[in-house]
Amino acid sequence: MPTRRTFLAHAAATTAAPMFAAVGAAQPAAPPPAWLAPLVPAIARLIDAARDGQPAWDRLAELCDTFGGRLTGSRNLALAIEWVAARLREDGFANVRSEAVTAPHWVRGDERLEIVSPVPSPLVVLGLGGSVATPPGGITAPVLVVRSFDELHERASDARGRIVLFDVPYSGYGQTVIYRATGASQAARLGAVAVLVRSVGPAGLRTPHTGAVSYAEGAPQIPAAAVPVEDANRLARMVARGQTVTLQLTMTGGLQAETVSANVVAEIPGRERPDEVVLIGGHFDSWDAAGGASDDGVGCIVTWEAARLMLTAGLRPRRTIRVVLFTNEENGLRGATAYRDAYAESARHHVMALEADSGVFDPIRLGFTGSGPARQRMADVVGLLAPLGMPALAAGGGGADIGPIVRLGEVPALALIGDGERYFQIHHTPADTVERIHPREVGTATAAIAAVTWAAAEMEESLRAVSDSASG
Amino acid sequence: MPTRRTFLAHAAATTAAPMFAAVGAAQPAAPPPAWLAPLVPAIARLIDAARDGQPAWDRLAELCDTFGGRLTGSRNLALAIEWVAARLREDGFANVRSEAVTAPHWVRGDERLEIVSPVPSPLVVLGLGGSVATPPGGITAPVLVVRSFDELHERASDARGRIVLFDVPYSGYGQTVIYRATGASQAARLGAVAVLVRSVGPAGLRTPHTGAVSYAEGAPQIPAAAVPVEDANRLARMVARGQTVTLQLTMTGGLQAETVSANVVAEIPGRERPDEVVLIGGHFDSWDAAGGASDDGVGCIVTWEAARLMLTAGLRPRRTIRVVLFTNEENGLRGATAYRDAYAESARHHVMALEADSGVFDPIRLGFTGSGPARQRMADVVGLLAPLGMPALAAGGGGADIGPIVRLGEVPALALIGDGERYFQIHHTPADTVERIHPREVGTATAAIAAVTWAAAEMEESLRAVSDSASG
Repeated sequence: MPTRRTFLAHAAATTAAPMFAAVGAAQPAAPPPAWLAPLVPAIARLIDAARDGQPAWDRLAELCDTFGGRLTGSRNLALAIEWVAARLREDGFANVRSEAVTAPHWVRGDERLEIVSPVPSPLVVLGLGGSVATPPGGITAPVLVVRSFDELHERASDARGRIVLFDVPYSGYGQTVIYRATGASQAARLGAVAVLVRSVGPAGLRTPHTGAVSYAEGAPQIPAAAVPVEDANRLARMVARGQTVTLQLTMTGGLQAETVSANVVAEIPGRERPDEVVLIGGHFDSWDAAGGASDDGVGCIVTWEAARLMLTAGLRPRRTIRVVLFTNEENGLRGATAYRDAYAESARHHVMALEADSGVFDPIRLGFTGSGPARQRMADVVGLLAPLGMPALAAGGGGADIGPIVRLGEVPALALIGDGERYFQIHHTPADTVERIHPREVGTATAAIAAVTWAAAEMEESLRAVSDSASG
Repeated sequence: MPTRRTFLAHAAATTAAPMFAAVGAAQPAAPPPAWLAPLVPAIARLIDAARDGQPAWDRLAELCDTFGGRLTGSRNLALAIEWVAARLREDGFANVRSEAVTAPHWVRGDERLEIVSPVPSPLVVLGLGGSVATPPGGITAPVLVVRSFDELHERASDARGRIVLFDVPYSGYGQTVIYRATGASQAARLGAVAVLVRSVGPAGLRTPHTGAVSYAEGAPQIPAAAVPVEDANRLARMVARGQTVTLQLTMTGGLQAETVSANVVAEIPGRERPDEVVLIGGHFDSWDAAGGASDDGVGCIVTWEAARLMLTAGLRPRRTIRVVLFTNEENGLRGATAYRDAYAESARHHVMALEADSGVFDPIRLGFTGSGPARQRMADVVGLLAPLGMPALAAGGGGADIGPIVRLGEVPALALIGDGERYFQIHHTPADTVERIHPREVGTATAAIAAVTWAAAEMEESLRAVSDSASG
């Protein structure tokens, strides 16, 4: 085994030499390009500090343990926002503030689903966020099982008066989530009285996945809930045996009056160009079934930690680094639009935006959306992360929370993207807990974010200027 | 790839030659011993018929889907007993009967567990079978987290008025289950007001494991429930941070008046020695959190199927084969003792007893308890199963249901034992569903049971006679 030298020790000895072989890469790395070389010592120092992810993991555990699920409008989220703002101040961030966001307030009530015939037997159910309640006694109706929207429409005359189950096998989140989001209204237009959705995720251990239902304008609003893969299979098999299966669904939750939540903002002011902003963050709200460790507690923790390590190291960037912990991503995106509206005038002063909202499960990668020259700069930085196992810069930057400001300001955008298989296994489920995440994964994610954030904040010519001069 | 020949085709050509290389074993097998050779054609035929486990898997799915959990005293179990008795008659079994068993009747009520301070947040909970209810408003008390009985007793003065959490890492079922079974009374004697147990199983996906609590005579009876590993971790971390964590536990279930359930018995009468009985079976009751596919639906299905294939093949054994589907294994063992009491006079006419109650997850093995000569006979038969991947006969026959008759009659006893890791992952959880079991595993288990059952029923000198003559 070669002796493992730290990024920091090597960076102290040289500012431009190829240093990354020293941390265990199989091949000597190419020297960093001239623009990046002066930034390497600070980046190496940040990477070294970040790699022990245990302190950040501990903070994530404290967040999730203390406050539990952080659904918009809940006291849990409100208290967690107070807690994180206080912690950011303690860390030495400047301009820590909670920026009010008016947002929808959905509450989960009691939820029960039962087979009432042929033989009464309870099922596992988890209501979809935004769902209307059933009448107090519940809805009792035979189930109609369909495997696609096409099959629903082929069997349109069977849907009236039925509880429709979309028993659609998971084939990736993007492909399958449409049934959760829009299935209720499509079935309601055919006269269905409620909708069940096979959980959008791989098979777990009788694990239901919640998420938002979106009612189409003009369609009747009917209750909507998720069932685990196993319960969907069971109902489908029973119907395939020729049984008429009658279900009773009871849900008492629903939308309340709008609430006031907040985006939490904290900054490291730029030393030379404080009006130019590098925006990094995740969303601080979560679903209520668990503490939202991966969605998106960890995204908040690793962006926060990346910036905190700069404070700890006494690093002061050329531009302002702004950490934003958005509210209401899960069921409204109001934090995202509120941020855009509040900062519309300075949208084009955002020189980079990064969102971490896909977990930190190995292997992680960084994705980028923006101009070719800006992409090259970020690819250069990502090259420094190869010793951590980080692949080359991928496509696909941005995120739901930074989307509005990125679109308005045409901001070069990054995304931290974790392994999807483990992420969607626990996505929106009661199993989205810190146990799934390894401290090493937190460290790697923090290191990656620290590197690109420092580079974007410190590089001489900004990412935006690089783009503009190339296109101009 | 060598051509794969069936057991049956080969057996048709020869009755004593080493045939088992033909089905894919790497090494040619030794010829079966003389006592076994005449039985090989029928055994080979049964193995061939059994190996496609899909029909039996389908029957297991139908059982679990239609009736759900089959807790003693539930209508679900009563209806399932009617169903299985009717099916056994349809299959052509003789003497199909339901033998009444008086048994305890515990019902699960509503169950809720919540952190009430520092910040209200719901936890996942699953009451232990046999638990008393809380008062109607629940029990609200600070949690005391202990990692062992020793720690409980060291902290005895802290237990009074507390909800005690036994946060004991899983180190195997036998070692850990004692906390679930006896923790409530140990804590109650120190003044605890309720008990929580870290689920007895490996970490899952926020998966609680139920099971029976056993109250010691003279100790106060306090409510007892299981929490998932993640919830136990969370509470332990919070307390380790110095927080006082107050919980509220509400449980409304409890013991009802005793009920009458039934063991289901079906036979293939022996053609020569009908009074000599080979007993095979599993337990038909289950916990209520799922359909009890592995515990122990599949044990009933594979023993039933092994015998059914003999009927289908027109095979009529020398001795009587008796399939017994026991009731009330999970929370009383009354089916086991009722069988012993009903058949006490013929206990010594049981020449072999086999129980399947450890799942059928690969790799499965057969265990045996009994005399050396009987063990050798069974080991010879198990040698025939090597091409299915079955290891040599292991130690440890018997089972909870056959235990009383085996002890009374000193009956040579076998157990079918599946892989423990997968089994205890879902044991007593909502995830004990058919999805976890592969039809191939059902086929292998059925084949193994068919082989040893046929051998024990058909061999000239009975297993018991072999033992007696050796010891006499």
